[in-house]
Amino acid sequence: MIPDTELPIPANGPGADVQAMADAIRFLALDSILNAGEGHQGVPLGMAEIAATLYARHLKANPKDPLWPDRDRVVLSNGHGSMLLYALLHLAGYDHVTVDALKSFRKLYSVCAGHPEIEQEAGIEITTGLLGQGIACAVGMAVAEQRLAAEFGAGLVDHRTWAFVGDGCLQEGIGQEAISLAGHLRLGKLTFLWDDNHITDDGDTALSISEDVPERFRAAGWHVQAVDGHDIGAIDVAMRMAMLDPRPSIIACRTVIARGIPRLQGKRGGHSAPLVPGDADEARVARGWHHPPFEVPAAVRADWARAMTRGAAAQAAWTERLATHPQAAAFRRWKAGALPEDWDGIVARLTREVATAEPHPTIAASGEICDALAGHLPETLVLCADLEAPTDHKRSRAAFTSAERAGSYVHCGVREHLMGAMADGIAAHGGLRPINVTYLAFADYERPAMRMAALMGLPALFVFSHDSIGVGSNGPTHQPVEILASFRAMPNMRVFRPADAVETAEAWAIALETRDGPSLLALSKQPAEQVRSPGAANLTRRGAYVLSEPGCRRDLTLIATGTEVGLAMRAQRALAGQGIGAAVVSMPCWELFEAQEPEYREAVLGTAPRIAIEAALSFGWDRWLRPADRFIGMQGFGASARADVLYDHFGLTEASIVATAHGLLGR
Amino acid sequence: MIPDTELPIPANGPGADVQAMADAIRFLALDSILNAGEGHQGVPLGMAEIAATLYARHLKANPKDPLWPDRDRVVLSNGHGSMLLYALLHLAGYDHVTVDALKSFRKLYSVCAGHPEIEQEAGIEITTGLLGQGIACAVGMAVAEQRLAAEFGAGLVDHRTWAFVGDGCLQEGIGQEAISLAGHLRLGKLTFLWDDNHITDDGDTALSISEDVPERFRAAGWHVQAVDGHDIGAIDVAMRMAMLDPRPSIIACRTVIARGIPRLQGKRGGHSAPLVPGDADEARVARGWHHPPFEVPAAVRADWARAMTRGAAAQAAWTERLATHPQAAAFRRWKAGALPEDWDGIVARLTREVATAEPHPTIAASGEICDALAGHLPETLVLCADLEAPTDHKRSRAAFTSAERAGSYVHCGVREHLMGAMADGIAAHGGLRPINVTYLAFADYERPAMRMAALMGLPALFVFSHDSIGVGSNGPTHQPVEILASFRAMPNMRVFRPADAVETAEAWAIALETRDGPSLLALSKQPAEQVRSPGAANLTRRGAYVLSEPGCRRDLTLIATGTEVGLAMRAQRALAGQGIGAAVVSMPCWELFEAQEPEYREAVLGTAPRIAIEAALSFGWDRWLRPADRFIGMQGFGASARADVLYDHFGLTEASIVATAHGLLGR
Repeated sequence: MIPDTELPIPANGPGADVQAMADAIRFLALDSILNAGEGHQGVPLGMAEIAATLYARHLKANPKDPLWPDRDRVVLSNGHGSMLLYALLHLAGYDHVTVDALKSFRKLYSVCAGHPEIEQEAGIEITTGLLGQGIACAVGMAVAEQRLAAEFGAGLVDHRTWAFVGDGCLQEGIGQEAISLAGHLRLGKLTFLWDDNHITDDGDTALSISEDVPERFRAAGWHVQAVDGHDIGAIDVAMRMAMLDPRPSIIACRTVIARGIPRLQGKRGGHSAPLVPGDADEARVARGWHHPPFEVPAAVRADWARAMTRGAAAQAAWTERLATHPQAAAFRRWKAGALPEDWDGIVARLTREVATAEPHPTIAASGEICDALAGHLPETLVLCADLEAPTDHKRSRAAFTSAERAGSYVHCGVREHLMGAMADGIAAHGGLRPINVTYLAFADYERPAMRMAALMGLPALFVFSHDSIGVGSNGPTHQPVEILASFRAMPNMRVFRPADAVETAEAWAIALETRDGPSLLALSKQPAEQVRSPGAANLTRRGAYVLSEPGCRRDLTLIATGTEVGLAMRAQRALAGQGIGAAVVSMPCWELFEAQEPEYREAVLGTAPRIAIEAALSFGWDRWLRPADRFIGMQGFGASARADVLYDHFGLTEASIVATAHGLLGR
Repeated sequence: MIPDTELPIPANGPGADVQAMADAIRFLALDSILNAGEGHQGVPLGMAEIAATLYARHLKANPKDPLWPDRDRVVLSNGHGSMLLYALLHLAGYDHVTVDALKSFRKLYSVCAGHPEIEQEAGIEITTGLLGQGIACAVGMAVAEQRLAAEFGAGLVDHRTWAFVGDGCLQEGIGQEAISLAGHLRLGKLTFLWDDNHITDDGDTALSISEDVPERFRAAGWHVQAVDGHDIGAIDVAMRMAMLDPRPSIIACRTVIARGIPRLQGKRGGHSAPLVPGDADEARVARGWHHPPFEVPAAVRADWARAMTRGAAAQAAWTERLATHPQAAAFRRWKAGALPEDWDGIVARLTREVATAEPHPTIAASGEICDALAGHLPETLVLCADLEAPTDHKRSRAAFTSAERAGSYVHCGVREHLMGAMADGIAAHGGLRPINVTYLAFADYERPAMRMAALMGLPALFVFSHDSIGVGSNGPTHQPVEILASFRAMPNMRVFRPADAVETAEAWAIALETRDGPSLLALSKQPAEQVRSPGAANLTRRGAYVLSEPGCRRDLTLIATGTEVGLAMRAQRALAGQGIGAAVVSMPCWELFEAQEPEYREAVLGTAPRIAIEAALSFGWDRWLRPADRFIGMQGFGASARADVLYDHFGLTEASIVATAHGLLGR
């Protein structure tokens, strides 16, 4: 036990009845689940004491200003236990989470959805529920806090990240990646509160795990404590110790799942077995809670209200500091996600700089752009999964490490899934613009986290190199053929495959201007022919455009993306020599093109026969092709050989375009 | 040190010069990489001693019969180091891996591809290269061996799984999942040979990891040893100890990356920096290897040949045991992947059994089928990621556990990615039919492993429940809307979304009859109306078919999949009442329909206006719809509410089909 005077945040007065505060959570959750007719009671009933202790004694947040930037972040990684969070938010006084909201639990467009759906005004920091995502996002939030604190100082940025964690989160690979990197980066303000209840959906955790979880955390450099998860005093002390330790902390809280329901507590059915009204009655007797459903005694409400004054007071002091802070303007710009003044000028300059006459890999152009933006947009934070050299997005950036928090490049190791979720956490935290970099083949590893970015509408940028068979002899495992289509299929994800450096710069500009969803850039390892000159408007904004009209009439339209646009341009010239007029349409972003007026789309695509060319499968291309039109691309997986050999082998050549044109036009 | 007499497999005679055997690997790899002009020298040069010791002293395999079922399995999880494997296979005497093959390294359709591509006749057990997949597949192989040994006894099945492992494999989440479950299941015949070289692509591993890797393995119940990875004696002893220990073993082999090239060894560039001819010259001097490129001295070749006689002798003894084994016929059938006699009768019976008049969730029908097959096809092995109750595919099956290897149901824990790769490993091992079960929302977690199954053409079955907004109030995180499309986009993956229990049985039959690729079943949580009666031919085989013709002329074609087929049938009846003749086409599998003759496809789809109905996004549906046709489905992500509320909310209703039909027909 350490003396109170050494503790960073004093405990509240001894007057608060934290056990009653916990029981208030327990019964609001129970009543809400019974009212909804379904839900997961295991977590809210099992973690009520842990949650109440956190909010009563330690959490820094102001429910009356949920968006206060320096608030502690709370992540419910075991999102199926969402009623824990909703009960907490209601009791803490978040206006959006009324009793009526609790009564609408699991109903259409209720703030109390089945799993937490991001709504920061309501205190819901991030969408969780697919196991493991939450704690990985929490790692991103903790990184964001440290990066921002390095920039603006502890006077403006000094908060903690708390994550409620279930067994499933710790079994998932992404959770394991999170443990490893958080320990490596010594994210000392990150605390996991593990609901160590020995039960998963299948029953006893012993069915599927026998590892020594605390030892696993110790091996990764974490501060590990174990407590009785219903002993408020012990939880309180452990939280204090966690706050004092420079390492990330896990508190293994031994809990009884569904604690309070005699029929279910400690059992497999405690997780989510359907409740009956008798369960609530018996729980009320068992816990000595003699209040009607949804009713919280005034004394308990008063304890909750008093607890939350700590955050309000902290915010008041913070607001005073901000008012006189020399970097206040920059802080506000970063926080707002606003682009710097003269953004258009910056983009125009860097587009000119990256545009070269020589063929150039689009991933290299992207690296140049990213580097140029490091100065203009210091709020960009680049994450890369052990591919610094082949993607080259570090350049002048310093690394963000355990010792140096001012860096804007995170070596994430070979942990793509974590990296994706960190980007979500960083974007949800606010103040920084996350940029992920790896190979497109590894997008499948990141995909669940990218889906979360799309679902949440977070402005994250996912940059991928090695976008096609252009990978060459590393072979089909590393050659995307279906991955473009798989992301074009994802709602709210903008997929860009730029033709050259200019389109790459345009895509970057659009991605950074986009505040309501993620963007994906699929870029080439191999040199892309330069098909555009800088100076004109950002043509990529319309998704597709006529890059080159034929000299006279349009006999044919060639539609291409990425490196195949250069190929189409060469075919256009060859066809012109044969008296065939072909327009070349560059189509870097389907989603933006789909959003244009039909008249624009029709004008671009034209009425002439069409040939689409893309070094990928045709899946999805029927959207832009009519039955008589043709597609030149891949038929299946790639192969291991040099890129030029593969392009020939799979028929992605000028000659094949010309021959297809002849067939199509009956010549 | 333990006396030789206690060791399970005696070492070869002291005559073999294992160091020279190792240097032969080293220089064949170096020469091949120089010849190809690119490649990753770090692994083959760094792991040469480890590999030579394994093959010289311990491996049980017969290069003259690469498919011998009781061979040890070798997995190169750090697949970028593929030249290690090719050099090994060449020296061990696998006929496919000639010197010419080595000289074709990284050339089109060479057996020596950039990353290992499965070709078991050549000794390449499995495709690897996306980091972490290999060791997860190895866990599957080790499970397969134990399950088969329980069935047929150690006389027929008694082999080990050895995996070469790099740092990246251990950083990936899937690798962490593999460690955890392998320890839990006490897979004592699994050994990881870790290339602990302190270097990843970015440079020193300290850039991205500081965890105590051996401790991490110990926490998961592994047997852990550490050796100098160039000390053949030490490696030999560690391998013996690993074979004696009942736990899975990791041997942390401290190695010098690219050992032998003075300019690069131990450095970041050792990983894959381009080599120059001088590197080979200097390496020859440094290692005292005075032989021309691709030349292996006769004495070294003789040592290699002698080493491999151990496996040949073991196979000879095994063949004798098989000849008189009472279960020889069953063993051969399992091994061949052949279906039991009277398969058609079995399928017909179970189709009758699952077909009910009442609406029934297709996941429940699948559970019944899986259970019925447990007796007929005892070689099926079901893996489930902590969703036993809601997917209900365990039923009469016993669990495969650390104590009981005869079980055919593996509780994989909340580790979907591992589970997918285990299915790949089990299928590649042979003898068993893996069946994975989880929710479709988690298919994104499994996807990279499913892609590997498709790429390798492995007969794995991926069963998913909760296929749509039918999930209900668990909300959009758990509701697939784009996942069907994302897998329809994947080559060689058959995606089935059956309409009812009969189509579910048909899809199961097709999946189990398919030997050359994986199948995916997307099944409903909510009851599906029964639209088919058993007895007819397997209509699902054609991918789509006319389920119901209109009474008279066809004014309209309704195309649907899954639970929406029942909806289409109701709409058909409503339209018939209004004098509109609508045909209903059930389209459970696009890939199979695509493979039909155009005439059949045209007859099914007809010339009348079409409405497609699927509780998913329209992406990809343009393949089957003309511009004037309509799609009724989702526009974006789902929401949290009861399934029936969501179907109404998103317009997936009989009324909306009828209204759309009116609009389309101008009524």
